[in-house]
Amino acid sequence: MAEYIEPLERLADMFRRLDGVGKKSAYRYAFNVLNFTDEEAYEFSKAIESVKREITLCEVCQNISTGSVCPICSSDKRDKSVICVVEDPRAVIAIENTGHYSGVYHVLHGAISPIKGISPGELKIKELLDRLKSDEVTEVIIATNPTVEGEATAMYLSKLIIPLGVKVSRIANGVPIGGDLEYADEVTLRRAIEGRYQL
Amino acid sequence: MAEYIEPLERLADMFRRLDGVGKKSAYRYAFNVLNFTDEEAYEFSKAIESVKREITLCEVCQNISTGSVCPICSSDKRDKSVICVVEDPRAVIAIENTGHYSGVYHVLHGAISPIKGISPGELKIKELLDRLKSDEVTEVIIATNPTVEGEATAMYLSKLIIPLGVKVSRIANGVPIGGDLEYADEVTLRRAIEGRYQL
Repeated sequence: MAEYIEPLERLADMFRRLDGVGKKSAYRYAFNVLNFTDEEAYEFSKAIESVKREITLCEVCQNISTGSVCPICSSDKRDKSVICVVEDPRAVIAIENTGHYSGVYHVLHGAISPIKGISPGELKIKELLDRLKSDEVTEVIIATNPTVEGEATAMYLSKLIIPLGVKVSRIANGVPIGGDLEYADEVTLRRAIEGRYQL
Repeated sequence: MAEYIEPLERLADMFRRLDGVGKKSAYRYAFNVLNFTDEEAYEFSKAIESVKREITLCEVCQNISTGSVCPICSSDKRDKSVICVVEDPRAVIAIENTGHYSGVYHVLHGAISPIKGISPGELKIKELLDRLKSDEVTEVIIATNPTVEGEATAMYLSKLIIPLGVKVSRIANGVPIGGDLEYADEVTLRRAIEGRYQL
């Protein structure tokens, strides 16, 4: 198969390392960059470098941050007695967007997965337990994903945290709002029935 | 809506300038880059810069090239008497991949489109006509896309080139190989019948 010229091949190769980008999309993106103005291309190149250089982890909650402590952890409007544990920074944004959570977070950066070879030691669990040593925290809400890995991580954490005398809760499963029962899978529907509440 | 931290936002904004990349994909890609090694991120950033810096247009056929004359134009194995006119460099690769074309190319870098405000003057048409001034060229195959713009460009070019005494042809339209008549659109099918050939 004929190949594109070398600099374009090299850029397409980089695009292919992004999640869900196949060969055709990678070339399309590389051609897009070729049509960028010099300023845009420079800006793009610098944006990649800054992401690696300027972003660090908040030393309290382990969320991504440009400072040593993130805005949520340093805010005096947030309730430090409740910690919501999530797998990754995207989940923090998702929960923040509900506008209904005023506690703080803890980002694990993954979930326990024997299949992917991710053991508890690779997650930010030690940092979470350190935070629970102070008397300030009264509840930990485990908001890992409703997947096999997320559930396993939730179980593992609850076994570690309950003995410390801290209340542990798990976010509810059920039929998504706006969803149609017909399209809900069996497990979700079973959980929705089990988790029914009285009106 | 809660926002990601600034360097991540900036990178996601750059990804959104690529064709077909929406907000969610842009953030996913930005997070991917955050998880790149420093070396990978550096390589990505440099690949973007090289594409802009190292790629130029072949002074003969106007295809993208790393040298002043591209490998196809400088090859003595290619038949310089036949020029295949295409809209963009991707079409060159597509035709090269057939392995059945031994002539040379001319890349217009677009098609005439009153709607998008692209006039003939913005395409590499003058450069094509200059090439036809030599006696060497005997045929021009117009392989612009089978779209309204591509057809208009083909018509425009044929009116300019035929008076020069050069044979002008257009690639055939028809049902794609492996396709199913049931799913072919009416225009394609009509062209396939009009363009029938005797066995």
